[in-house]
Amino acid sequence: MKVRAIIAYDGTNYVGWQVQPNGLSVQEEVNRCLSELLKEDIHCIGASRTDAGVHSLGNVICFETNTRMPAEKIAIALNSYLPEDIVCQGSMEASEDFNPRHSKSIKTYEYKILNRKYPMPTVRRDTLFCRYPLDVEKMNTAAQYLAGEHDFTSFSNVHAQSNTRVRTIYQIGVTKDAADIIHIRVQGSGFLYNMVRIIAGTLIEVGSGRMAVDAIPGILEAKDRSAAGPTAPAHGLTQIGIQYFN
Amino acid sequence: MKVRAIIAYDGTNYVGWQVQPNGLSVQEEVNRCLSELLKEDIHCIGASRTDAGVHSLGNVICFETNTRMPAEKIAIALNSYLPEDIVCQGSMEASEDFNPRHSKSIKTYEYKILNRKYPMPTVRRDTLFCRYPLDVEKMNTAAQYLAGEHDFTSFSNVHAQSNTRVRTIYQIGVTKDAADIIHIRVQGSGFLYNMVRIIAGTLIEVGSGRMAVDAIPGILEAKDRSAAGPTAPAHGLTQIGIQYFN
Repeated sequence: MKVRAIIAYDGTNYVGWQVQPNGLSVQEEVNRCLSELLKEDIHCIGASRTDAGVHSLGNVICFETNTRMPAEKIAIALNSYLPEDIVCQGSMEASEDFNPRHSKSIKTYEYKILNRKYPMPTVRRDTLFCRYPLDVEKMNTAAQYLAGEHDFTSFSNVHAQSNTRVRTIYQIGVTKDAADIIHIRVQGSGFLYNMVRIIAGTLIEVGSGRMAVDAIPGILEAKDRSAAGPTAPAHGLTQIGIQYFN
Repeated sequence: MKVRAIIAYDGTNYVGWQVQPNGLSVQEEVNRCLSELLKEDIHCIGASRTDAGVHSLGNVICFETNTRMPAEKIAIALNSYLPEDIVCQGSMEASEDFNPRHSKSIKTYEYKILNRKYPMPTVRRDTLFCRYPLDVEKMNTAAQYLAGEHDFTSFSNVHAQSNTRVRTIYQIGVTKDAADIIHIRVQGSGFLYNMVRIIAGTLIEVGSGRMAVDAIPGILEAKDRSAAGPTAPAHGLTQIGIQYFN
């Protein structure tokens, strides 16, 4: 049968989602623990190939298995094999045509920035620290230029592999909470390599005043990576979840 | 001069605030870094002797120094010596009669519980995980019996050293946020050893239905530690801050 499961992780100690020669990946740990639990070689596919240091509250995986264990029971059983920084959030049988990478979905990401005079050690693993004041209202106004369907070449790593760099952002918003944390939350059909981190890096430029609020349309039009701001550090990024239509 | 400073820490890797023979304490690290920075032997006094694994967003310390560095500049300078899980949040000259342990103050603590089916790895360091459902409304109703001046013998460790076990809780509230985290926030003039963790452990009993909402007045009256619930684990507790009147 084909099983679909949700995997959350603190990405601090991993080289990213995907198996890499240079260190331990989340995918490798999940494959190892699934194989131990189900007593067969399991190779899972993950929806989002998050970078080293990026976190997830709900990456979606699927894999084939010959187990007789009901699909719904796998999540709890798997958690007794996984390390404490990776936790399965649920499992179910998947339809044969389900593919976490290609099935239509809405993906949600959040980039967090602690904006105050001193860093706060309790949030250091998943929040970028920024000492100089950022104007949240300006950041949110600038962000709205990115909503909708655009060619995001300027907001993607030059090494991004994709036939088209056109993507749709359904929703984007920038807010600040009572703990001085700025949340950049973005929802879309899919994201190019480094796209959310380049959006965050560009909005930080706008928030600091180094870039104008209305510079965004020109950056999109340029279709040139060097027109946008820098790629914000990985550890501030968290994949929130993926909603599928099937 | 006498200097007062605010120290925040992720308590995960420490044996607690106070210098201990069995491992590294936050106080030891702060003393070591202050001594390196100011090039003299510094021995700081901390307001709250938090237990192993307890976190703080703002413990208050004071120390004597012969330095000519302005007191306000010490915070930033100290942070370049401190490890990433301890961060100074500000410094100032203190009046000669200031003592972080004895000067009148309002102390705020928060105990956090993730209440859902699966643990979430990104919050595991400072939030207790609880799988069975807790009734937040019942917990908050029960908590209100603790507000005001009471003898908190039932809610303190039998080894607590104090002339009197009478304390005043100014405010206590239990709420649940959108991420399924229950926050028990309590404000008081001072707390006995383990008091906030025993309050949390008892409110968890009430939330699970194992203890009645109106059991609290009887527990207070009993003046017996065994009448209250268990001591909740240390890692869910965070000292939020201390407000002094001088």
